[in-house]
Amino acid sequence: MYIYHTSIKLHDTDAAGLLFFANQFKLAHDAYETFFNALGFNLGKMIQSGTFVLPIVHADADFTAPLFVGDRVGIRIHLGKVGRSSFTLLYDILRETGETVGRVKTVHVAIDKQTREKIELPERLKMALMTGGESLPE
Amino acid sequence: MYIYHTSIKLHDTDAAGLLFFANQFKLAHDAYETFFNALGFNLGKMIQSGTFVLPIVHADADFTAPLFVGDRVGIRIHLGKVGRSSFTLLYDILRETGETVGRVKTVHVAIDKQTREKIELPERLKMALMTGGESLPE
Amino acid sequence: MYIYHTSIKLHDTDAAGLLFFANQFKLAHDAYETFFNALGFNLGKMIQSGTFVLPIVHADADFTAPLFVGDRVGIRIHLGKVGRSSFTLLYDILRETGETVGRVKTVHVAIDKQTREKIELPERLKMALMTGGESLPE
Amino acid sequence: MYIYHTSIKLHDTDAAGLLFFANQFKLAHDAYETFFNALGFNLGKMIQSGTFVLPIVHADADFTAPLFVGDRVGIRIHLGKVGRSSFTLLYDILRETGETVGRVKTVHVAIDKQTREKIELPERLKMALMTGGESLPE
Repeated sequence: MYIYHTSIKLHDTDAAGLLFFANQFKLAHDAYETFFNALGFNLGKMIQSGTFVLPIVHADADFTAPLFVGDRVGIRIHLGKVGRSSFTLLYDILRETGETVGRVKTVHVAIDKQTREKIELPERLKMALMTGGESLPE
Repeated sequence: MYIYHTSIKLHDTDAAGLLFFANQFKLAHDAYETFFNALGFNLGKMIQSGTFVLPIVHADADFTAPLFVGDRVGIRIHLGKVGRSSFTLLYDILRETGETVGRVKTVHVAIDKQTREKIELPERLKMALMTGGESLPE
Repeated sequence: MYIYHTSIKLHDTDAAGLLFFANQFKLAHDAYETFFNALGFNLGKMIQSGTFVLPIVHADADFTAPLFVGDRVGIRIHLGKVGRSSFTLLYDILRETGETVGRVKTVHVAIDKQTREKIELPERLKMALMTGGESLPE
Repeated sequence: MYIYHTSIKLHDTDAAGLLFFANQFKLAHDAYETFFNALGFNLGKMIQSGTFVLPIVHADADFTAPLFVGDRVGIRIHLGKVGRSSFTLLYDILRETGETVGRVKTVHVAIDKQTREKIELPERLKMALMTGGESLPE
């Protein structure tokens, strides 16, 4: 489990006055990048010099309470199902009061950067996902 | 059925070289706005002077093929399930060749703008959704 | 001169109800991509297989009238100063009535994709910029 | 002077591999929101229940060095010119090494929320801008 803290910025909202729905996915991805960085996987380095990438093949979200400019949120990440070449991340969007305001899921597949073919999840990544997350400070 | 035509812009992509996943939801919403405008429901006017709004309470997407800067796509909208206060829209993201590269679903709930309570789908909207979409030019 | 037509989408606006200022730069860039495509320079192809790129080293904008969700705008591009390795593009943001609602300027420098050093503006690009724009249909 | 710390996220970049230019303006605005919050002016509350707003009427930026996914930056805000109804903010984008990688300027005008007419800068805001910034912790 890992928690990423952030706040809703003006550009995250739209003229209806609240968080624009697609930006909840964007915020979950910010949490994922920070989480992976803490696990020792810097997305920037992976893109520049890594041998594999982890594109998202499925995403879904529920929106249960409105979020407004300046609202502080924590995004709590859990590891979901881990497959041969894929893994699922689950994100709870929480107010500081602990109230859940939304939920996101992303399914990632490991592919070889050159061939663009599916590969087995690299062992080092699998280990980091399955054990590392436990010992991370929030 | 309605088709919205657009192309992938540089800012829709990220350093991994392809469409950033959350922007597929954004593009689907662009299609929804254009579709609703064609049905006689201008989102801008609804926000400024309407009595109800249609927030998204659930969204999901599959990403089946990569999209790059300059790629032209059509977003084909179908009406899904229509409930008492909600409706579902289904979007197929297609290349000009007809190849499906992604899919999006959004579930909308009608709420009163003042009370923020669920309301029955306004009859005029329901009619437009159920019949209007049929007769629209692509 | 070239005109790009678009409309303000919900995600272009923010909770203050109007176009978020940074998105005026984004819309100008959309116009630039479409303009360059019309000149025979596809940004996607340039990034994937070209020998040079044209990063922006300076940008400025004025915001003279508010834009709301659904507003239709034309973005008129003019060529500004052309230097040894740089060129300037000027964008007028116009309502359908012809009213100017904003202005953007971007300064681009040609750099070699490998060395990241400034290069002389490729002749083919210079020609396209200086003559091609004239003969393009709006 | 106030410094806002953040890092470049994947969605801030584009397929050319670096920060998309318009997103430097977005990051500067994030810094502005955080700065104003520290001064006691919460943008969300101002939009919801304030009597005035502070739209940007001019913005410009220089881009002097590339920023990549995961790069950590500090955005240092200085107060520029203060006029009767307007004020200017200057932002330096710095790497952790202190290297300046970009610069942004935004000019804000105080307008009455109802009439949309220019008003004199509210005294409380002027005081906060001119003195408060000095004593804020970085």
